[in-house]
Amino acid sequence: MSDIEKKIGLLAGAGEVPAYFSRQATQKGIRIIAVSFSDKIHAELEPLVEKSYSIGIGKPGKIFKTFKDENITDIVMLGKVDKKIIFQPSFFDLRAVTFFKSLLSQEDKILLLGVIKEIEKEGLNVLDQKELLGEIFPAKGVLTKRKPSVKEMEDINFGIPIAKKLADMEIGQTIVVKNKTVVSVEAIEGTDKALARGCELSRGKCVAVKVSRTNQDYRYDVPGIGPQTMESLKSGGASVLAMEAGRVMIVDQEKVVEVANRAKISIVCV
Amino acid sequence: MSDIEKKIGLLAGAGEVPAYFSRQATQKGIRIIAVSFSDKIHAELEPLVEKSYSIGIGKPGKIFKTFKDENITDIVMLGKVDKKIIFQPSFFDLRAVTFFKSLLSQEDKILLLGVIKEIEKEGLNVLDQKELLGEIFPAKGVLTKRKPSVKEMEDINFGIPIAKKLADMEIGQTIVVKNKTVVSVEAIEGTDKALARGCELSRGKCVAVKVSRTNQDYRYDVPGIGPQTMESLKSGGASVLAMEAGRVMIVDQEKVVEVANRAKISIVCV
Repeated sequence: MSDIEKKIGLLAGAGEVPAYFSRQATQKGIRIIAVSFSDKIHAELEPLVEKSYSIGIGKPGKIFKTFKDENITDIVMLGKVDKKIIFQPSFFDLRAVTFFKSLLSQEDKILLLGVIKEIEKEGLNVLDQKELLGEIFPAKGVLTKRKPSVKEMEDINFGIPIAKKLADMEIGQTIVVKNKTVVSVEAIEGTDKALARGCELSRGKCVAVKVSRTNQDYRYDVPGIGPQTMESLKSGGASVLAMEAGRVMIVDQEKVVEVANRAKISIVCV
Repeated sequence: MSDIEKKIGLLAGAGEVPAYFSRQATQKGIRIIAVSFSDKIHAELEPLVEKSYSIGIGKPGKIFKTFKDENITDIVMLGKVDKKIIFQPSFFDLRAVTFFKSLLSQEDKILLLGVIKEIEKEGLNVLDQKELLGEIFPAKGVLTKRKPSVKEMEDINFGIPIAKKLADMEIGQTIVVKNKTVVSVEAIEGTDKALARGCELSRGKCVAVKVSRTNQDYRYDVPGIGPQTMESLKSGGASVLAMEAGRVMIVDQEKVVEVANRAKISIVCV
């Protein structure tokens, strides 16, 4: 995005990403008008953004009106929430939502593209998160003090194309590899559980691999890792996190690398 | 195998398969000389076979001599044991062995083919279990009273080619599917754990899929399910077990189908 010196609407779900984005964007002079789906998210974002609203997920009319009143044309959708339920009056809780989203992930793409079309009908443009936040998608290289060993590089080179195939088959985007064997594969249980299982089955000292889908749509679905992922790898005793360069986000890279360095884990972007 | 009216050597590991095979073979008039890797297996097989020996896994010389003294030329390797450690003096326990085997599964093929070559050097021929036991690899059709619904057939048809791809990538051979989403993928944790995870994440009512690898070598590695698998599916609340016809073994089909019928699970071979 060449013209970023303007106001952006932020549709904020749960997790660390919306606050992280708000801090980064504000530092870059981007003005953020946030609409949070809960009071908790709203409270967290309020000090970080130009204006913050808390609007129930079941009130798309009010959300659109708020953005229009604020003269917003571009919005970004961030955080863990099922964007398709924007158009549903109510739902159980985030855990149920996450589960529901996972379970419907095959249809997710179509539904979310439907939501984006609805948003565009309202005159709003949904931005690509990778273009907005390019700097948090690390390029090729080792981010940590510890470099992977030759044997670990072999596991990385073994694992990356397999993880890409699984991602492109719309299964998971995370695997754990050891001795050129796929130890665990993420499906809908989520990254952290797949990593924990892989570390346990490997008895630690394994290589975690995280990749994007070839046709990843960065408007609504961004593969990423953060401090929590790194804590999982640390407690599981993993040796390496290998990520696809330029296509997987690190939220709070400073903290992630610090945890990795202390745990002597290598982070490698390939 | 056309000429089965002869003596066969059985190299027996743990699990229900060696005893099952011994019963079936004896009924068909095949004479079995069993070499079991533990006294426990030996005690179980002794009443079922013509002769039974218990020889430690670290004594291949004694094993070969026993088979030669018994004029055995054809052997079959059955049961859960790492066949490659036949040539190692000692090992921890079966759990460690199973783990070790799982972890090395990429190299397993090469190592086991090496073991088979060693065995062949001794003048012994390792038999294909599918040819010996053709009748326990069910052909196309529904084995249970309950037939899969149209929606379940869609999940089966969705899941089978995905499971085949994963199997051919040397990952697992079992997946759980629901609403055209892959809910869990087996890697090295084993079939039962992948099924339990898939059932839990699906909240039951899911389709379990089990397939063979395209180049499955049935001399040392046979994909199969048995009563224990069916009990896992029952307690997980699964609706359907879909297997690749003619290439996946059912151990104790009568009991498996009985459990499935009581639990209203469909077993479908496609």
